[in-house]
Amino acid sequence: MQIRPLHDRVIIKRLEAETTTAFGIVIPDTAGEKPDQGEVIAVGPGKRDEAGRIITPDVKVGDRVLFGKYSGQTVKVDGEELLVMREEDIMGVLE
Amino acid sequence: MQIRPLHDRVIIKRLEAETTTAFGIVIPDTAGEKPDQGEVIAVGPGKRDEAGRIITPDVKVGDRVLFGKYSGQTVKVDGEELLVMREEDIMGVLE
Amino acid sequence: MQIRPLHDRVIIKRLEAETTTAFGIVIPDTAGEKPDQGEVIAVGPGKRDEAGRIITPDVKVGDRVLFGKYSGQTVKVDGEELLVMREEDIMGVLE
Amino acid sequence: MQIRPLHDRVIIKRLEAETTTAFGIVIPDTAGEKPDQGEVIAVGPGKRDEAGRIITPDVKVGDRVLFGKYSGQTVKVDGEELLVMREEDIMGVLE
Amino acid sequence: MQIRPLHDRVIIKRLEAETTTAFGIVIPDTAGEKPDQGEVIAVGPGKRDEAGRIITPDVKVGDRVLFGKYSGQTVKVDGEELLVMREEDIMGVLE
Amino acid sequence: MQIRPLHDRVIIKRLEAETTTAFGIVIPDTAGEKPDQGEVIAVGPGKRDEAGRIITPDVKVGDRVLFGKYSGQTVKVDGEELLVMREEDIMGVLE
Amino acid sequence: MQIRPLHDRVIIKRLEAETTTAFGIVIPDTAGEKPDQGEVIAVGPGKRDEAGRIITPDVKVGDRVLFGKYSGQTVKVDGEELLVMREEDIMGVLE
Repeated sequence: MQIRPLHDRVIIKRLEAETTTAFGIVIPDTAGEKPDQGEVIAVGPGKRDEAGRIITPDVKVGDRVLFGKYSGQTVKVDGEELLVMREEDIMGVLE
Repeated sequence: MQIRPLHDRVIIKRLEAETTTAFGIVIPDTAGEKPDQGEVIAVGPGKRDEAGRIITPDVKVGDRVLFGKYSGQTVKVDGEELLVMREEDIMGVLE
Repeated sequence: MQIRPLHDRVIIKRLEAETTTAFGIVIPDTAGEKPDQGEVIAVGPGKRDEAGRIITPDVKVGDRVLFGKYSGQTVKVDGEELLVMREEDIMGVLE
Repeated sequence: MQIRPLHDRVIIKRLEAETTTAFGIVIPDTAGEKPDQGEVIAVGPGKRDEAGRIITPDVKVGDRVLFGKYSGQTVKVDGEELLVMREEDIMGVLE
Repeated sequence: MQIRPLHDRVIIKRLEAETTTAFGIVIPDTAGEKPDQGEVIAVGPGKRDEAGRIITPDVKVGDRVLFGKYSGQTVKVDGEELLVMREEDIMGVLE
Repeated sequence: MQIRPLHDRVIIKRLEAETTTAFGIVIPDTAGEKPDQGEVIAVGPGKRDEAGRIITPDVKVGDRVLFGKYSGQTVKVDGEELLVMREEDIMGVLE
Repeated sequence: MQIRPLHDRVIIKRLEAETTTAFGIVIPDTAGEKPDQGEVIAVGPGKRDEAGRIITPDVKVGDRVLFGKYSGQTVKVDGEELLVMREEDIMGVLE
């Protein structure tokens, strides 16, 4: 079972700390807390601008993304914990 | 008797916890509380954008949807408890 | 004497609890409080969108409507208690 | 001496409670307080919409209007107490 | 030396209480406090609407204006105390 | 070294109290505090309106300007204390 | 590994105090705290205006920029502490 996100929402699988270290990024003054990065699992179609056009999100499934520590809401799908947040809350893509 | 929602409001029948488990999704750190998903019972025509055009909602009757725990307002119709919320508060559709 | 509402305001006669039960809708966790539905008595011409066009309200005189418990302001006309609220605060029409 | 209101402001002479009773309207749960209706004394030219056009107010001098209890600011002109409020704060016209 | 106001700002010389009484206006429930009217000393060119056009203010130098008690900021020019406020904060012109 | 301000930001050198007195302006009820005027050192290109056009600021280098006491942020360049604020926070130009 | 910023976000390497002194700028009343300037490491494509057009940021990689002390969020990439902030929060470029 999957979540099809609406509008500009993005589903993210938070990366474990070990994985994070492998990627070399940790949020410094919050040592021991959950890392603020993850992998994009699903992306909504985008929100509409004031002229009614849909703005395609700038992230795609598989992107490793960086986001604010308290961004999004946590859900559990088939035993797997996921985050649902707006594309706006994603700060950047790790490359 | 039915509620015909106005604008971008959506009527949702909250799924029972048992049903939720069958679907495999629970909101983790609020164990024992009501699940945050349900089935769409009725959908309003949509809100208007700034140019005055109606934006058709992205959910339809029968969709199983995920929403924030405190979204919407509870009403009881013919003894059945329902939620009224804006389409904006629906995070995604379960497929 | 009557109130002619301005803009997108709607005048509503709140339905008594008995009437409400007949209609089968009660707001569950506020038992004993006033029901949140009523009958539309008068409707304003509608508010203007950003392009200056008037948006006709989606309710009409005689509609039975559902609204938030704390929506609107109470006035008494010729001894009859009425509610004045914006069409935006009406959640749906009971059919 | 008179006040010529700017933009969408309206000058209102609050009706005395006696007069209000004659009109049959009182705000119920605030018995003994000042009534929330009055007579329009002067009307500004209207505010501008986002396209720069002036929106003519929907009230005119002489209208008996209903407004929120705490709307507007009180001024005294030639010994007469008046209210200055935005047309937006007027809920309806009594007819 | 003079202040040339920017945008929609207006420079106002507050009228003394004596002068105010001559004009017949006092703010009732704040007896003994400074009157909320004054004479316009300088007017900015106006602010821009969303289409980028400048909206000429509706007051001119010499107008006697009414404004909210706490509107604007006080400055002293050549020993004379003046108020700087936005045209939006002026409620009306006394005629 | 210089600061090139971005958007609608303005760099201001605050005038000393002595200089201010020479100009005849002091903010009255804050005697002994820093004056709220200064000289414009640098001006950004301007911000964009909703149509995407850049709005050229109404102040230029060398202007003596009046601003709110708590406007802007203080920086020190080559040992000289400067203020960075938005053009919006400048109330007027002293002439 | 690098961060590709989304929208109008900018990645900044904060300059050390020593470097700052060499540049001659310190934020005065916060002696001993981290300087509020840095070097731009990466720039997003820009945000969209209301007409849907992307607005290219006014800073580029290598620019030395000045920003508010509490602007942005700190991340650590490959052991290097970086700041992620919106271009809007950058006050100016040091030249």
